[in-house]
Amino acid sequence: MEQLETDDQPGFVERQVRRHRKGETSIAADDVGQEWPVALVYNGISHAVMMCTPRDLEAFAVGFSLTEGIVGRGSDIHDIEVFFRDDGAVVPHAEVHLQVVQQAFVSLKDKRRALAGRTGCGVCGIESIELLDLQPERVPDTGFLARLAPDAIERAARELPAHQQLTKRTGGLHAAAWCDETGAVRYAFEDVGRHNALDKLIGQLILRREDTTQGFVFLSSRASYELVRKSARVGVPMVATISAPTSLAIAIAKQAGLRLVSFARENSFVEYDVE
Amino acid sequence: MEQLETDDQPGFVERQVRRHRKGETSIAADDVGQEWPVALVYNGISHAVMMCTPRDLEAFAVGFSLTEGIVGRGSDIHDIEVFFRDDGAVVPHAEVHLQVVQQAFVSLKDKRRALAGRTGCGVCGIESIELLDLQPERVPDTGFLARLAPDAIERAARELPAHQQLTKRTGGLHAAAWCDETGAVRYAFEDVGRHNALDKLIGQLILRREDTTQGFVFLSSRASYELVRKSARVGVPMVATISAPTSLAIAIAKQAGLRLVSFARENSFVEYDVE
Repeated sequence: MEQLETDDQPGFVERQVRRHRKGETSIAADDVGQEWPVALVYNGISHAVMMCTPRDLEAFAVGFSLTEGIVGRGSDIHDIEVFFRDDGAVVPHAEVHLQVVQQAFVSLKDKRRALAGRTGCGVCGIESIELLDLQPERVPDTGFLARLAPDAIERAARELPAHQQLTKRTGGLHAAAWCDETGAVRYAFEDVGRHNALDKLIGQLILRREDTTQGFVFLSSRASYELVRKSARVGVPMVATISAPTSLAIAIAKQAGLRLVSFARENSFVEYDVE
Repeated sequence: MEQLETDDQPGFVERQVRRHRKGETSIAADDVGQEWPVALVYNGISHAVMMCTPRDLEAFAVGFSLTEGIVGRGSDIHDIEVFFRDDGAVVPHAEVHLQVVQQAFVSLKDKRRALAGRTGCGVCGIESIELLDLQPERVPDTGFLARLAPDAIERAARELPAHQQLTKRTGGLHAAAWCDETGAVRYAFEDVGRHNALDKLIGQLILRREDTTQGFVFLSSRASYELVRKSARVGVPMVATISAPTSLAIAIAKQAGLRLVSFARENSFVEYDVE
């Protein structure tokens, strides 16, 4: 897969703010997380628009294509080009043009899903419950969980904040990190949308030819159905989140044989639906 | 509009959990927020599936239909029936069947948007950037903001937690509240998705024939494009959120003439993009 250079946006913009505190006001400059419409265009056809922080969009497009089942493997994507459009448009936006194998493109058209999403959203295009992917395949047991260090989750929780530079600036982004069996953070991505952050992370793993079964995902958010499903799709053995899981996240993790850890903090965590 | 009785789910389920703390583990019961696929079926055709907490689904369906522009007003919806399906299905789910005026249904089919969403998602079905609603109409100036009490935002921030019973139980839901000019909370709804919580709130206002231009929305989340756009669509003059706004939320609020307040806490708040 050809990797093209792209001029990433910084991920934040400065805005004038008025702070109100106990009746007093003051004017200051503050940083805000960038939320841009990002169109994903497959073989020339615009397929989905996600509301996304315009950084690492190549990784995002690779991750999204995989976790949404648009392609089966990274090598199904022949080419990716990212275009940033900040020129008099109503709002600045980006387009990611992907060339995928013909079979994937035909299957995409057949599904006739008009995907789309917004900030917090994973994907879409599901018209009816029958189309939902509620029976994920089981993730392969490669022995990773048996090798996981006893303090790996706590270590990841401790290390993550150092990788959340945009969150530190803006107070409002989510992070997704890839951690090894010791809990060391290997990669981390931020985005206004937690699903986007995860897609960027998974895309990066694919671009770097990392084994997605040999590590775990650590998320700064809650665990929803969508985040577990996306992780299971690429064989991730464990997902840890700082906040709570939903009922369906727990159910899908169980079906997929994926270990789900919640309220992951520096010295504690919780596992649900244990026997 | 006929209001049918529905047996709401509790919004949470009990799960066995294993707590890990500094190497010690213990088993306990804990409550988890319910996340169910909820299909929205218009005039017999399944149109979108949202991942939603299965309470207040009639209000949700009314709000979603309005904030997504599927209907122009509440009276365009002739009938709503909610069905809960917890009977041996892969996962429990719900269906909301709406009967809408023929014109709305035709227009929905014309758009050919296969909407859908997940937990954190507002809407979808947007295939290309041209289809995004980036130029909202201006909200009408009814003088509400001029009447707003100086401490209304702080009061709403103080009062909201008492209305977050599911969040207290589960640690993982979002709330959307409707507040009057004194900051008193008049209605509040919770959901695993912040967009869903807002749609439930707006739907309830419509069902109760409240004036959506005479109050403000207070959200326990960040402010994204989607939340501002949904609020603007029904003429809400102000949106306050506990956490940060995105760049696009700020831009859309400015275009709509909607006052956006962020980091709304008990004794401070911030406004962006001031002159």
